[in-house]
Amino acid sequence: MVFDITILGSNSASFAFGRHQTAQIVNHNHHLFLIDCGEGTQIQMLRYRIRLNRINHIFISHLHGDHYLGLLGLLSTMHLQGRRNPLFLYGPPGLAEIITLQFQISDTRLNYHIDFKELETERSYQILETDTLTVQTLPLDHRIACCGFLFKEKPKKRRLLRDKLPHGLPPVHLNALKRGEDVKDEAGNVVVRSEEVTLPPRPSRGYAYCSDTRYNERLIPLIRNVDLLYHESTFTNEYAERAAVTYHSTAQQAAEIAQRAEVGRLILGHYSSRYRDLTTFEQEAREVFANSFLSSEGATIPIGELTNESD
Amino acid sequence: MVFDITILGSNSASFAFGRHQTAQIVNHNHHLFLIDCGEGTQIQMLRYRIRLNRINHIFISHLHGDHYLGLLGLLSTMHLQGRRNPLFLYGPPGLAEIITLQFQISDTRLNYHIDFKELETERSYQILETDTLTVQTLPLDHRIACCGFLFKEKPKKRRLLRDKLPHGLPPVHLNALKRGEDVKDEAGNVVVRSEEVTLPPRPSRGYAYCSDTRYNERLIPLIRNVDLLYHESTFTNEYAERAAVTYHSTAQQAAEIAQRAEVGRLILGHYSSRYRDLTTFEQEAREVFANSFLSSEGATIPIGELTNESD
Repeated sequence: MVFDITILGSNSASFAFGRHQTAQIVNHNHHLFLIDCGEGTQIQMLRYRIRLNRINHIFISHLHGDHYLGLLGLLSTMHLQGRRNPLFLYGPPGLAEIITLQFQISDTRLNYHIDFKELETERSYQILETDTLTVQTLPLDHRIACCGFLFKEKPKKRRLLRDKLPHGLPPVHLNALKRGEDVKDEAGNVVVRSEEVTLPPRPSRGYAYCSDTRYNERLIPLIRNVDLLYHESTFTNEYAERAAVTYHSTAQQAAEIAQRAEVGRLILGHYSSRYRDLTTFEQEAREVFANSFLSSEGATIPIGELTNESD
Repeated sequence: MVFDITILGSNSASFAFGRHQTAQIVNHNHHLFLIDCGEGTQIQMLRYRIRLNRINHIFISHLHGDHYLGLLGLLSTMHLQGRRNPLFLYGPPGLAEIITLQFQISDTRLNYHIDFKELETERSYQILETDTLTVQTLPLDHRIACCGFLFKEKPKKRRLLRDKLPHGLPPVHLNALKRGEDVKDEAGNVVVRSEEVTLPPRPSRGYAYCSDTRYNERLIPLIRNVDLLYHESTFTNEYAERAAVTYHSTAQQAAEIAQRAEVGRLILGHYSSRYRDLTTFEQEAREVFANSFLSSEGATIPIGELTNESD
């Protein structure tokens, strides 16, 4: 089952050195979710051949412009491209007002419905559940109301060993075996033992998106053991004081969170426009957490191990 | 004296085929004015090496997203780049509210002052006067309140023929000669005749920006004889009906306005995203008005004849 992220923007505040404002696509089992939507996100999606109307859920972490200024244009283009399906838009208080005012003044009536879901950013709670996935908020410590998002796969089923199955078992029995239940005959005797014809379920993978935030230890229990953590790293150590004052993190602080939460991999991003070269970010993070990597735009990063589609 | 425009965006509605939403820079005597500000305008300015904080006046024609969605990001980046000078922002009713709401919700306090100038879009009137230039509105016929902008050079002074001037004339006399006044001695006798030591003034040039609008004959007297007309041309003749319904123009209608207003040159733009190839726009316009050209992004187009800096 596909589970990955594609980076559309890696810079903070402004466009600089070819780097765009924050936006990411999460692809889970071919369902696309957009997290944050800086200016030019629709242009980046066109560049990386991601069809806008495959997205049904958009999550906005906070209302600093570099995280949402591409949204109104994206919503308009979805309309122009003939969208009819409702769109679920999650964001802090104020987002609905901003969007509604602009569509009202431009006398725009969309051909689809936007279902605004106003987020509380002070606590962690579940905001979306699909057949295979849950999404919950992660309270962040930023200058204005801000939360991250935790994508977690639901527990999966055991995997059938087709070779070991008796012929002609009806689907109802196959489903029982996948749930770990044995197949019994009418007298109650076990005919097929789940353990003998299945493998344990694949692990359920998790992705945590944390931007923007100061160093924030309260995150650690919430994101423990996720396979992939994206954590903002606006500054290098040289500007640690500036990070604190502006409610941002250094790459090393991001790595400390990653190390203490024992995550699989850390992806850095939200770089300050003062940096042309980013190698120091990776170096400083790796001193604390070896499995740290720079995000770069257009890159798709798998979450956990790559597994077979049918698993 | 420099007087030209640089096209930053040439497409309508959405980004398509590498074409951005509407934005233009007018450069008059090294003063930069921005007209409209679609999504990604600040990125385009970086691409074409135009320094954001050289701009002191921004004109927004109307509040459809493709004409202003880059504005909030641009204003933010101006702030981040240390701007202190006030910015004059001209736009229809609603613009101030949109901008103010977003800065309020993001808790942004700019280091510079924005002087909002709300435009009436139903009549043509002067909105700006500098030492050398005036700007006035052009009422357009669009689905929502919308106006274009007419940039006109003020009448210029006569040009001194340095070779023919007597030596040692004080500046007060030089200025009089440039105004066409003769220099007289104390007895009132003409000592230097302006006509003999000066050339006539250079012509005062004009630029008319007309987007978005239906075919609108009321424009003709307002823009008569301008050196350069930018007129939207969202569609080719094939979609003339769609142009009327959506309050847009075809390239041929733009050319009719150009021809009847006897302008110097016509620049087309605001192309619909349905067109990959634009040659039909130019062809259809030239059937009516030979001096028609496509706008293309990054191109700088002089207004009137190129003249010497010192003129």
